[in-house]
Amino acid sequence: MLQPNIEVCFSPHSYPLFRGQGQVVVVVDVLRATSAICAGIANGVNSIMPVETIDEAKSYSEKGFVVAGERNGEVLDGFELGNSPYSFMDPKLIGKNIALTTTNGTKAIKSAYQAENIIIGAFVNLGSVIEHLLNQKKNVLVLCAGWKDKFNLEDTLFAGALAIELLRSGLFVTSCDSTRAAIVLYEHAKDNLENFLKDSSHRARLGKLNLEKDIEYCLSINKLNVLPILDKNGFIVKETQQNNVLL
Amino acid sequence: MLQPNIEVCFSPHSYPLFRGQGQVVVVVDVLRATSAICAGIANGVNSIMPVETIDEAKSYSEKGFVVAGERNGEVLDGFELGNSPYSFMDPKLIGKNIALTTTNGTKAIKSAYQAENIIIGAFVNLGSVIEHLLNQKKNVLVLCAGWKDKFNLEDTLFAGALAIELLRSGLFVTSCDSTRAAIVLYEHAKDNLENFLKDSSHRARLGKLNLEKDIEYCLSINKLNVLPILDKNGFIVKETQQNNVLL
Repeated sequence: MLQPNIEVCFSPHSYPLFRGQGQVVVVVDVLRATSAICAGIANGVNSIMPVETIDEAKSYSEKGFVVAGERNGEVLDGFELGNSPYSFMDPKLIGKNIALTTTNGTKAIKSAYQAENIIIGAFVNLGSVIEHLLNQKKNVLVLCAGWKDKFNLEDTLFAGALAIELLRSGLFVTSCDSTRAAIVLYEHAKDNLENFLKDSSHRARLGKLNLEKDIEYCLSINKLNVLPILDKNGFIVKETQQNNVLL
Repeated sequence: MLQPNIEVCFSPHSYPLFRGQGQVVVVVDVLRATSAICAGIANGVNSIMPVETIDEAKSYSEKGFVVAGERNGEVLDGFELGNSPYSFMDPKLIGKNIALTTTNGTKAIKSAYQAENIIIGAFVNLGSVIEHLLNQKKNVLVLCAGWKDKFNLEDTLFAGALAIELLRSGLFVTSCDSTRAAIVLYEHAKDNLENFLKDSSHRARLGKLNLEKDIEYCLSINKLNVLPILDKNGFIVKETQQNNVLL
Protein backbone atom coordinates (compact mmCIF):
# COMPACT_ATOMS: atom_id res chain seq x y z
CA MET A 1 0.00 0.00 0.00
CA LEU A 2 1.21 3.48 -0.86
CA GLN A 3 2.19 5.66 2.06
CA PRO A 4 0.06 8.77 2.47
CA ASN A 5 1.77 11.95 1.37
CA ILE A 6 1.82 15.50 2.61
CA GLU A 7 1.64 18.57 0.39
CA VAL A 8 1.51 22.27 1.14
CA CYS A 9 -0.52 24.77 -0.86
CA PHE A 10 0.58 28.35 -0.22
CA SER A 11 -2.71 30.08 -1.03
CA PRO A 12 -6.40 29.42 -1.74
CA HIS A 13 -5.73 30.69 -5.28
CA SER A 14 -3.62 27.57 -5.96
CA TYR A 15 -5.91 25.06 -4.24
CA PRO A 16 -7.37 23.65 -7.49
CA LEU A 17 -3.84 22.52 -8.42
CA PHE A 18 -3.59 20.43 -5.25
CA ARG A 19 -7.12 19.12 -4.79
CA GLY A 20 -7.18 15.35 -4.41
CA GLN A 21 -9.76 12.75 -3.62
CA GLY A 22 -9.84 11.52 -0.04
CA GLN A 23 -7.19 13.92 1.23
CA VAL A 24 -7.54 15.67 4.55
CA VAL A 25 -7.33 19.43 4.03
CA VAL A 26 -5.83 21.28 6.99
CA VAL A 27 -6.82 24.93 6.65
CA VAL A 28 -4.52 27.32 8.47
CA ASP A 29 -4.71 31.08 9.01
CA VAL A 30 -2.42 31.54 12.00
CA LEU A 31 -2.98 35.32 12.26
CA ARG A 32 -5.76 35.00 13.32
CA ALA A 33 -8.81 33.23 11.93
CA THR A 34 -7.98 29.58 12.60
CA SER A 35 -6.38 30.43 15.97
CA ALA A 36 -9.63 32.19 16.91
CA ILE A 37 -11.72 29.26 15.67
CA CYS A 38 -9.70 26.88 17.85
CA ALA A 39 -10.09 29.19 20.83
CA GLY A 40 -13.85 29.43 20.26
CA ILE A 41 -14.46 25.70 19.81
CA ALA A 42 -12.25 24.95 22.84
CA ASN A 43 -14.28 27.51 24.80
CA GLY A 44 -17.50 25.63 24.07
CA VAL A 45 -18.88 27.51 21.08
CA ASN A 46 -21.36 25.08 19.49
CA SER A 47 -20.52 25.78 15.85
CA ILE A 48 -18.89 28.30 13.55
CA MET A 49 -20.22 28.89 10.05
CA PRO A 50 -17.54 30.30 7.73
CA VAL A 51 -19.05 32.82 5.33
CA GLU A 52 -17.41 34.83 2.61
CA THR A 53 -19.27 38.11 2.50
CA ILE A 54 -20.28 40.68 5.06
CA ASP A 55 -23.89 40.57 3.88
CA GLU A 56 -23.98 36.80 4.23
CA ALA A 57 -22.69 37.12 7.78
CA LYS A 58 -25.38 39.68 8.57
CA SER A 59 -28.08 37.35 7.26
CA TYR A 60 -26.99 34.79 9.87
CA SER A 61 -27.57 37.39 12.55
CA GLU A 62 -31.29 37.15 11.80
CA LYS A 63 -31.09 33.40 12.39
CA GLY A 64 -29.76 33.91 15.89
CA PHE A 65 -26.08 33.56 15.16
CA VAL A 66 -23.45 35.68 16.82
CA VAL A 67 -21.82 37.55 13.95
CA ALA A 68 -18.04 37.82 13.80
CA GLY A 69 -16.18 39.60 11.06
CA GLU A 70 -12.93 41.28 10.20
CA ARG A 71 -11.38 42.93 7.19
CA ASN A 72 -7.70 43.84 7.07
CA GLY A 73 -7.32 43.11 10.76
CA GLU A 74 -10.13 45.31 12.04
CA VAL A 75 -13.53 44.35 13.50
CA LEU A 76 -16.32 45.09 11.05
CA ASP A 77 -18.73 47.86 11.97
CA GLY A 78 -21.83 46.51 13.69
CA PHE A 79 -20.30 43.06 14.26
CA GLU A 80 -20.18 41.57 17.72
CA LEU A 81 -16.72 40.02 17.31
CA GLY A 82 -13.70 40.35 15.04
CA ASN A 83 -11.21 37.51 14.88
CA SER A 84 -9.21 38.06 18.02
CA PRO A 85 -8.79 34.68 19.74
CA TYR A 86 -9.36 36.35 23.11
CA SER A 87 -12.79 37.58 22.06
CA PHE A 88 -13.68 33.96 21.20
CA MET A 89 -12.91 32.90 24.78
CA ASP A 90 -15.80 34.92 26.21
CA PRO A 91 -17.95 32.61 28.40
CA LYS A 92 -21.07 34.25 26.90
CA LEU A 93 -20.27 32.35 23.68
CA ILE A 94 -20.59 28.89 25.22
CA GLY A 95 -23.23 26.94 23.32
CA LYS A 96 -23.65 29.69 20.75
CA ASN A 97 -23.43 29.48 16.96
CA ILE A 98 -21.17 31.99 15.24
CA ALA A 99 -21.08 33.16 11.63
CA LEU A 100 -17.54 34.28 10.78
CA THR A 101 -16.14 36.19 7.83
CA THR A 102 -12.46 37.20 7.62
CA THR A 103 -10.06 38.60 5.01
CA ASN A 104 -8.28 35.33 4.29
CA GLY A 105 -9.18 32.47 6.64
CA THR A 106 -12.83 31.96 5.81
CA LYS A 107 -12.03 32.38 2.12
CA ALA A 108 -9.51 29.54 2.41
CA ILE A 109 -12.08 27.30 4.12
CA LYS A 110 -14.69 28.10 1.49
CA SER A 111 -12.25 27.43 -1.36
CA ALA A 112 -11.91 23.84 -0.15
CA TYR A 113 -15.53 23.54 0.93
CA GLN A 114 -16.26 20.55 -1.30
CA ALA A 115 -13.38 18.49 0.10
CA GLU A 116 -14.43 15.35 1.96
CA ASN A 117 -12.35 16.15 5.04
CA ILE A 118 -11.54 19.61 6.30
CA ILE A 119 -9.94 20.30 9.65
CA ILE A 120 -8.81 23.57 11.21
CA GLY A 121 -5.17 23.97 12.17
CA ALA A 122 -3.18 26.59 14.04
CA PHE A 123 -0.11 26.57 16.27
CA VAL A 124 -2.40 26.53 19.31
CA ASN A 125 -3.80 23.08 18.35
CA LEU A 126 -0.82 21.67 16.42
CA GLY A 127 -0.62 18.54 18.58
CA SER A 128 -4.31 17.74 18.07
CA VAL A 129 -3.92 18.15 14.31
CA ILE A 130 -0.91 15.83 14.26
CA GLU A 131 -2.70 13.22 16.35
CA HIS A 132 -5.74 13.29 14.07
CA LEU A 133 -3.67 12.96 10.90
CA LEU A 134 -1.58 10.12 12.29
CA ASN A 135 -4.82 8.29 13.09
CA GLN A 136 -6.43 8.99 9.73
CA LYS A 137 -3.40 7.95 7.63
CA LYS A 138 -4.82 9.75 4.60
CA ASN A 139 -3.08 12.11 2.18
CA VAL A 140 -2.70 15.53 3.79
CA LEU A 141 -2.93 18.92 2.14
CA VAL A 142 -2.04 21.94 4.25
CA LEU A 143 -3.98 24.82 2.76
CA CYS A 144 -2.46 28.12 3.84
CA ALA A 145 -4.83 31.07 3.88
CA GLY A 146 -2.01 33.42 2.88
CA TRP A 147 -2.72 37.10 2.41
CA LYS A 148 -5.14 38.04 -0.36
CA ASP A 149 -4.15 34.97 -2.34
CA LYS A 150 -0.42 35.51 -1.89
CA PHE A 151 2.06 33.43 0.09
CA ASN A 152 2.58 34.37 3.72
CA LEU A 153 5.22 33.31 6.21
CA GLU A 154 3.22 32.48 9.32
CA ASP A 155 0.93 29.91 7.70
CA THR A 156 3.91 28.37 5.92
CA LEU A 157 5.74 28.00 9.25
CA PHE A 158 2.76 26.08 10.62
CA ALA A 159 2.85 23.84 7.54
CA GLY A 160 6.54 23.19 8.14
CA ALA A 161 6.02 22.33 11.80
CA LEU A 162 3.25 19.90 10.87
CA ALA A 163 5.16 18.33 7.99
CA ILE A 164 8.22 17.69 10.18
CA GLU A 165 6.15 15.69 12.65
CA LEU A 166 4.24 13.70 10.03
CA LEU A 167 7.43 12.77 8.20
CA ARG A 168 9.19 11.96 11.47
CA SER A 169 6.46 9.39 12.22
CA GLY A 170 7.60 7.39 9.21
CA LEU A 171 3.98 6.99 8.12
CA PHE A 172 4.00 9.87 5.63
CA VAL A 173 6.13 10.77 2.63
CA THR A 174 6.48 13.88 0.51
CA SER A 175 7.82 14.82 -2.90
CA CYS A 176 6.44 18.33 -2.74
CA ASP A 177 8.81 21.27 -3.07
CA SER A 178 6.59 23.62 -1.10
CA THR A 179 6.56 21.14 1.80
CA ARG A 180 10.35 21.05 1.75
CA ALA A 181 10.50 24.84 1.70
CA ALA A 182 8.09 25.05 4.63
CA ILE A 183 10.26 22.65 6.61
CA VAL A 184 13.43 24.67 5.99
CA LEU A 185 11.62 27.86 6.98
CA TYR A 186 10.26 26.35 10.19
CA GLU A 187 13.64 24.89 11.14
CA HIS A 188 15.13 28.34 10.59
CA ALA A 189 12.49 30.18 12.61
CA LYS A 190 11.37 27.74 15.30
CA ASP A 191 13.51 29.00 18.15
CA ASN A 192 11.84 32.39 18.00
CA LEU A 193 8.80 32.49 15.77
CA GLU A 194 7.79 35.92 16.95
CA ASN A 195 11.18 37.40 16.21
CA PHE A 196 11.34 35.79 12.77
CA LEU A 197 7.90 37.11 11.91
CA LYS A 198 8.47 40.61 13.17
CA ASP A 199 9.28 41.78 9.63
CA SER A 200 6.62 39.71 7.91
CA SER A 201 4.04 41.65 6.00
CA HIS A 202 0.93 40.58 7.93
CA ARG A 203 2.67 40.75 11.30
CA ALA A 204 3.58 44.35 10.47
CA ARG A 205 -0.05 45.11 9.61
CA LEU A 206 -1.27 43.69 12.90
CA GLY A 207 1.48 45.42 14.87
CA LYS A 208 0.04 48.72 13.75
CA LEU A 209 -3.29 47.68 15.23
CA ASN A 210 -1.81 46.98 18.68
CA LEU A 211 -2.49 43.29 18.52
CA GLU A 212 0.70 42.15 20.22
CA LYS A 213 -1.18 40.03 22.75
CA ASP A 214 -3.11 38.27 19.99
CA ILE A 215 0.07 37.58 18.06
CA GLU A 216 1.79 36.10 21.09
CA TYR A 217 -1.20 33.81 21.63
CA CYS A 218 -1.41 32.76 17.97
CA LEU A 219 2.27 31.81 17.90
CA SER A 220 2.15 29.65 21.02
CA ILE A 221 2.18 25.94 20.37
CA ASN A 222 -0.21 23.35 21.80
CA LYS A 223 -2.17 25.63 24.10
CA LEU A 224 -5.39 23.81 23.22
CA ASN A 225 -6.36 20.19 22.93
CA VAL A 226 -9.08 20.68 20.36
CA LEU A 227 -9.72 19.70 16.77
CA PRO A 228 -12.29 21.80 14.91
CA ILE A 229 -13.58 19.98 11.82
CA LEU A 230 -16.10 20.78 9.14
CA ASP A 231 -19.25 18.71 9.54
CA LYS A 232 -21.38 17.49 6.66
CA ASN A 233 -23.56 20.57 6.88
CA GLY A 234 -20.66 22.97 6.51
CA PHE A 235 -20.40 23.99 10.15
CA ILE A 236 -17.11 23.96 12.03
CA VAL A 237 -17.64 21.86 15.12
CA LYS A 238 -15.59 20.03 17.71
CA GLU A 239 -14.40 16.64 16.56
CA THR A 240 -16.20 13.88 18.41
CA GLN A 241 -16.46 10.14 17.97
CA GLN A 242 -19.62 10.72 15.95
CA ASN A 243 -17.88 13.16 13.65
CA ASN A 244 -15.22 10.58 13.04
CA VAL A 245 -17.85 8.10 11.92
CA LEU A 246 -19.30 10.67 9.54
CA LEU A 247 -15.88 11.24 8.00
CA MET B 1 11.35 59.35 -3.92
CA LEU B 2 10.22 55.87 -3.02
CA GLN B 3 12.86 53.18 -3.18
CA PRO B 4 12.18 50.46 -5.74
CA ASN B 5 11.01 47.21 -4.23
CA ILE B 6 11.56 43.57 -5.00
CA GLU B 7 8.87 40.91 -4.97
CA VAL B 8 8.90 37.21 -5.79
CA CYS B 9 6.05 35.41 -7.51
CA PHE B 10 6.31 31.64 -7.13
CA SER B 11 4.42 30.63 -10.27
CA PRO B 12 2.95 32.03 -13.50
CA HIS B 13 -0.48 31.15 -12.06
CA SER B 14 -0.05 33.91 -9.46
CA TYR B 15 1.46 36.53 -11.78
CA PRO B 16 -1.76 38.60 -12.08
CA LEU B 17 -1.57 39.21 -8.31
CA PHE B 18 1.88 40.77 -8.66
CA ARG B 19 1.67 42.61 -11.97
CA GLY B 20 2.69 46.25 -11.63
CA GLN B 21 3.26 49.14 -13.96
CA GLY B 22 6.86 49.88 -14.85
CA GLN B 23 8.30 46.91 -12.99
CA VAL B 24 11.07 44.80 -14.47
CA VAL B 25 9.96 41.16 -14.63
CA VAL B 26 12.83 38.69 -14.25
CA VAL B 27 11.61 35.36 -15.59
CA VAL B 28 13.50 32.36 -14.22
CA ASP B 29 13.32 28.67 -15.05
CA VAL B 30 16.65 27.42 -13.77
CA LEU B 31 16.09 23.81 -14.87
CA ARG B 32 16.49 24.44 -17.77
CA ALA B 33 14.71 26.93 -20.06
CA THR B 34 16.19 30.24 -18.95
CA SER B 35 19.64 28.67 -18.46
CA ALA B 36 19.45 27.42 -22.05
CA ILE B 37 18.25 30.80 -23.32
CA CYS B 38 21.24 32.48 -21.66
CA ALA B 39 23.58 29.88 -23.16
CA GLY B 40 22.05 30.41 -26.61
CA ILE B 41 22.14 34.20 -26.57
CA ALA B 42 25.70 34.15 -25.19
CA ASN B 43 26.63 31.74 -28.00
CA GLY B 44 25.47 34.23 -30.62
CA VAL B 45 21.93 33.04 -31.36
CA ASN B 46 20.23 36.06 -32.96
CA SER B 47 16.85 35.73 -31.27
CA ILE B 48 14.62 33.29 -29.43
CA MET B 49 10.86 33.44 -29.81
CA PRO B 50 9.04 31.90 -26.82
CA VAL B 51 5.95 30.02 -27.94
CA GLU B 52 3.39 28.14 -25.91
CA THR B 53 2.26 25.30 -28.09
CA ILE B 54 4.00 22.63 -30.10
CA ASP B 55 1.98 23.53 -33.21
CA GLU B 56 2.98 27.17 -32.88
CA ALA B 57 6.63 26.15 -32.66
CA LYS B 58 6.26 24.03 -35.79
CA SER B 59 4.74 26.96 -37.68
CA TYR B 60 7.94 28.91 -37.02
CA SER B 61 9.92 26.12 -38.64
CA GLU B 62 8.33 27.09 -41.95
CA LYS B 63 9.59 30.65 -41.43
CA GLY B 64 13.18 29.45 -41.18
CA PHE B 65 13.45 29.23 -37.41
CA VAL B 66 15.29 26.46 -35.65
CA VAL B 67 12.64 24.75 -33.57
CA ALA B 68 13.38 23.84 -29.95
CA GLY B 69 10.92 22.12 -27.70
CA GLU B 70 10.62 20.06 -24.58
CA ARG B 71 7.85 18.58 -22.51
CA ASN B 72 8.48 17.05 -19.10
CA GLY B 73 12.22 17.20 -19.65
CA GLU B 74 12.35 15.37 -22.97
CA VAL B 75 13.07 16.71 -26.46
CA LEU B 76 9.90 16.81 -28.56
CA ASP B 77 9.68 14.41 -31.50
CA GLY B 78 10.78 16.05 -34.73
CA PHE B 79 12.32 19.07 -32.96
CA GLU B 80 15.93 20.03 -33.58
CA LEU B 81 16.66 20.97 -29.97
CA GLY B 82 15.19 20.44 -26.51
CA ASN B 83 16.17 22.79 -23.73
CA SER B 84 19.57 21.47 -22.74
CA PRO B 85 21.91 24.46 -22.36
CA TYR B 86 24.67 22.47 -24.06
CA SER B 87 22.61 22.02 -27.19
CA PHE B 88 22.20 25.83 -27.32
CA MET B 89 25.99 26.25 -27.41
CA ASP B 90 26.29 24.60 -30.83
CA PRO B 91 28.24 26.93 -33.18
CA LYS B 92 25.74 26.07 -35.94
CA LEU B 93 23.21 28.23 -34.06
CA ILE B 94 25.21 31.46 -34.31
CA GLY B 95 23.09 34.10 -36.04
CA LYS B 96 20.04 31.82 -36.12
CA ASN B 97 16.52 32.48 -34.84
CA ILE B 98 15.01 29.87 -32.54
CA ALA B 99 11.39 29.19 -31.64
CA LEU B 100 11.26 27.59 -28.18
CA THR B 101 8.45 25.87 -26.29
CA THR B 102 8.99 24.27 -22.87
CA THR B 103 6.87 22.84 -20.06
CA ASN B 104 7.20 25.82 -17.74
CA GLY B 105 9.71 28.44 -18.86
CA THR B 106 8.11 29.70 -22.03
CA LYS B 107 4.72 29.63 -20.33
CA ALA B 108 6.11 31.92 -17.63
CA ILE B 109 7.50 34.33 -20.23
CA LYS B 110 4.20 34.36 -22.10
CA SER B 111 2.21 34.95 -18.93
CA ALA B 112 4.08 38.25 -18.44
CA TYR B 113 4.28 39.03 -22.14
CA GLN B 114 2.48 42.37 -21.83
CA ALA B 115 4.89 43.67 -19.19
CA GLU B 116 6.95 46.67 -20.26
CA ASN B 117 10.27 45.13 -19.23
CA ILE B 118 11.05 41.42 -19.28
CA ILE B 119 14.52 40.02 -18.76
CA ILE B 120 15.72 36.43 -18.55
CA GLY B 121 17.47 35.25 -15.40
CA ALA B 122 19.30 32.10 -14.37
CA PHE B 123 22.18 31.30 -12.05
CA VAL B 124 24.50 31.34 -15.05
CA ASN B 125 23.87 35.06 -15.67
CA LEU B 126 23.00 36.17 -12.12
CA GLY B 127 25.67 38.90 -12.11
CA SER B 128 24.40 40.40 -15.36
CA VAL B 129 20.84 40.43 -14.01
CA ILE B 130 21.95 42.18 -10.84
CA GLU B 131 23.95 44.77 -12.76
CA HIS B 132 21.01 45.53 -15.03
CA LEU B 133 18.57 45.91 -12.15
CA LEU B 134 20.91 48.13 -10.15
CA ASN B 135 21.17 50.37 -13.21
CA GLN B 136 17.45 50.42 -13.91
CA LYS B 137 16.38 51.19 -10.35
CA LYS B 138 12.82 50.09 -11.11
CA ASN B 139 10.55 47.81 -9.10
CA VAL B 140 11.57 44.19 -9.62
CA LEU B 141 9.35 41.14 -9.85
CA VAL B 142 11.05 37.75 -9.98
CA LEU B 143 8.63 35.49 -11.82
CA CYS B 144 9.47 31.85 -11.09
CA ALA B 145 8.40 29.39 -13.76
CA GLY B 146 7.75 26.74 -11.12
CA TRP B 147 6.48 23.33 -12.15
CA LYS B 148 3.09 23.21 -13.82
CA ASP B 149 1.97 26.30 -11.92
CA LYS B 150 3.23 25.04 -8.58
CA PHE B 151 6.10 26.37 -6.48
CA ASN B 152 9.52 24.89 -7.11
CA LEU B 153 12.72 25.12 -5.14
CA GLU B 154 15.34 25.87 -7.77
CA ASP B 155 13.68 29.00 -9.17
CA THR B 156 13.00 30.21 -5.63
CA LEU B 157 16.68 29.80 -4.76
CA PHE B 158 17.59 32.01 -7.70
CA ALA B 159 15.07 34.59 -6.49
CA GLY B 160 16.67 34.49 -3.05
CA ALA B 161 20.18 34.94 -4.43
CA LEU B 162 19.04 37.92 -6.49
CA ALA B 163 17.05 39.51 -3.66
CA ILE B 164 19.99 39.30 -1.28
CA GLU B 165 22.19 41.28 -3.63
CA LEU B 166 19.57 43.91 -4.48
CA LEU B 167 18.78 44.50 -0.81
CA ARG B 168 22.48 44.55 0.08
CA SER B 169 22.95 47.43 -2.38
CA GLY B 170 20.72 49.58 -0.21
CA LEU B 171 18.86 50.75 -3.32
CA PHE B 172 15.98 48.28 -2.99
CA VAL B 173 13.50 47.42 -0.27
CA THR B 174 11.01 44.60 0.22
CA SER B 175 7.94 43.95 2.31
CA CYS B 176 7.13 40.73 0.48
CA ASP B 177 6.89 37.48 2.43
CA SER B 178 7.80 35.31 -0.55
CA THR B 179 10.99 37.34 -1.03
CA ARG B 180 11.90 36.77 2.61
CA ALA B 181 11.21 33.05 2.26
CA ALA B 182 13.37 32.88 -0.87
CA ILE B 183 16.23 34.58 0.98
CA VAL B 184 16.06 32.14 3.90
CA LEU B 185 16.01 29.20 1.47
CA TYR B 186 18.98 30.49 -0.49
CA GLU B 187 20.99 31.19 2.66
CA HIS B 188 20.23 27.65 3.77
CA ALA B 189 21.17 26.04 0.46
CA LYS B 190 23.88 28.26 -1.01
CA ASP B 191 26.90 26.27 0.08
CA ASN B 192 25.75 23.28 -1.91
CA LEU B 193 22.84 24.01 -4.21
CA GLU B 194 23.13 20.68 -5.95
CA ASN B 195 23.01 18.74 -2.72
CA PHE B 196 20.06 20.76 -1.43
CA LEU B 197 18.14 20.19 -4.64
CA LYS B 198 18.84 16.50 -4.91
CA ASP B 199 15.49 15.68 -3.34
CA SER B 200 13.57 18.41 -5.12
CA SER B 201 10.78 17.24 -7.32
CA HIS B 202 12.02 18.56 -10.66
CA ARG B 203 15.63 17.65 -9.94
CA ALA B 204 14.44 14.09 -9.35
CA ARG B 205 12.58 14.10 -12.66
CA LEU B 206 15.66 15.27 -14.55
CA GLY B 207 17.92 12.83 -12.72
CA LYS B 208 15.89 10.01 -14.19
CA LEU B 209 16.64 11.42 -17.64
CA ASN B 210 20.44 11.36 -17.08
CA LEU B 211 20.77 15.09 -17.19
CA GLU B 212 23.40 15.43 -14.46
CA LYS B 213 25.72 17.48 -16.67
CA ASP B 214 22.92 19.91 -17.50
CA ILE B 215 21.99 20.30 -13.86
CA GLU B 216 25.57 21.02 -12.85
CA TYR B 217 25.73 23.70 -15.54
CA CYS B 218 22.40 25.27 -14.59
CA LEU B 219 23.41 25.55 -10.94
CA SER B 220 26.74 27.24 -11.61
CA ILE B 221 26.77 30.96 -10.93
CA ASN B 222 27.99 33.72 -13.24
CA LYS B 223 29.28 31.52 -16.02
CA LEU B 224 27.97 33.98 -18.61
CA ASN B 225 28.09 37.72 -18.95
CA VAL B 226 24.88 38.06 -20.92
CA LEU B 227 21.46 39.59 -20.42
CA PRO B 228 18.67 38.27 -22.64
CA ILE B 229 15.76 40.69 -22.78
CA LEU B 230 12.44 40.71 -24.57
CA ASP B 231 12.40 43.26 -27.39
CA LYS B 232 9.34 45.21 -28.48
CA ASN B 233 8.45 42.53 -31.02
CA GLY B 234 8.41 39.74 -28.46
CA PHE B 235 11.77 38.20 -29.35
CA ILE B 236 14.37 37.39 -26.73
CA VAL B 237 17.57 39.13 -27.80
CA LYS B 238 20.85 40.21 -26.29
CA GLU B 239 20.65 43.47 -24.41
CA THR B 240 22.45 46.24 -26.28
CA GLN B 241 22.59 49.98 -25.87
CA GLN B 242 19.76 50.25 -28.40
CA ASN B 243 17.64 47.80 -26.45
CA ASN B 244 18.20 49.92 -23.38
CA VAL B 245 16.89 52.94 -25.21
CA LEU B 246 13.83 51.01 -26.29
CA LEU B 247 13.13 50.03 -22.70
